[in-house]
Amino acid sequence: MQYPAPIAKLIESYMKLPGIGAKTAARLAFYTIEMNEDDVTTFAKSLISVKRDLHYCSICGNITEEDPCEICADNTRDKSVILVVEETKDVMALEKMREYQGLYHVLHGVLSPMDGTGPDDINIASLINRLHDAKVKEVIIATNATTEGEATAMYLSRLIKPAGIKVTRLAHGLSVGSDIEYADEVTLLKAVEGRREL
Amino acid sequence: MQYPAPIAKLIESYMKLPGIGAKTAARLAFYTIEMNEDDVTTFAKSLISVKRDLHYCSICGNITEEDPCEICADNTRDKSVILVVEETKDVMALEKMREYQGLYHVLHGVLSPMDGTGPDDINIASLINRLHDAKVKEVIIATNATTEGEATAMYLSRLIKPAGIKVTRLAHGLSVGSDIEYADEVTLLKAVEGRREL
Repeated sequence: MQYPAPIAKLIESYMKLPGIGAKTAARLAFYTIEMNEDDVTTFAKSLISVKRDLHYCSICGNITEEDPCEICADNTRDKSVILVVEETKDVMALEKMREYQGLYHVLHGVLSPMDGTGPDDINIASLINRLHDAKVKEVIIATNATTEGEATAMYLSRLIKPAGIKVTRLAHGLSVGSDIEYADEVTLLKAVEGRREL
Repeated sequence: MQYPAPIAKLIESYMKLPGIGAKTAARLAFYTIEMNEDDVTTFAKSLISVKRDLHYCSICGNITEEDPCEICADNTRDKSVILVVEETKDVMALEKMREYQGLYHVLHGVLSPMDGTGPDDINIASLINRLHDAKVKEVIIATNATTEGEATAMYLSRLIKPAGIKVTRLAHGLSVGSDIEYADEVTLLKAVEGRREL
């Protein structure tokens, strides 16, 4: 006896999610059968809705319901600074600090010759377009501290600096609350290099 | 900035699944945005379908599209033996061995005074009803080897034996391919008690 078709299909769908294998997918599918009917309906509707109602902002590439997005449309924000991130999730994380008042630009990836991702595959062209606006004075590059993130930062900096726009990179160093004993050597090196006078 | 409403709702839905917390739910939601549209639609439809198209078999309590289920409706199967399991998943596991030809009965739980689950809360009444059929000669109890599983087996055996029906329990012992060194003492004890002559 096979799984009844509806379960088999649901298991297959769960398995398409990252980090979910056959056993977990089966467990989730059986759990779904026992779930409250309203919850399952809401779940299904939400799935459809994220595909149908969300778009990329035509200015910054952030995920949004309205175009342009909330941040690009907000006239109280400082339009002279653009902070460049890899993913939408990074925008959410940065917005949580409630301190940064400038705009964002989401690359949707990083340069990675190994994976065949070149400058045309990520959202760089529209960033360069935005810089034609004379208001932009600074581009803060906040790609991750990985090899690809650093390479992308370097590439963007070489591309943007000749236009006379200030290019900065987020500081690297010890996390707040972290223990020197457990910090990796590259982080420690960055922390020493970036030391500041008290 | 909060997550846009469609993402926030999807994250909430993912969090209702077992073993998925806020961070994993957010990761899955963002992954969903990048998924193929057809896959997401199929996923949503499968969710609705498991709630709408699956029912419990009115005879054995197994999950099925048709009532009675494939197994109960199969006239080639041996109707003199009923194997009692805790969950539908157990039926699937037992069917994989392609050896057992009798019928099943799914309890949908075990007796657990700690959680307030009594005999009326699980699918026992319909099992007793099935035993009125004179064809039934043996009931194999295959609840799990947990305290609750053992207690349920004991309870069922006391209930069924007086009707003159043979009640058996699956053998406990070492798993095939397992190492004696790593077996727990209860399993070892069961293995010694249940030893067979070669």
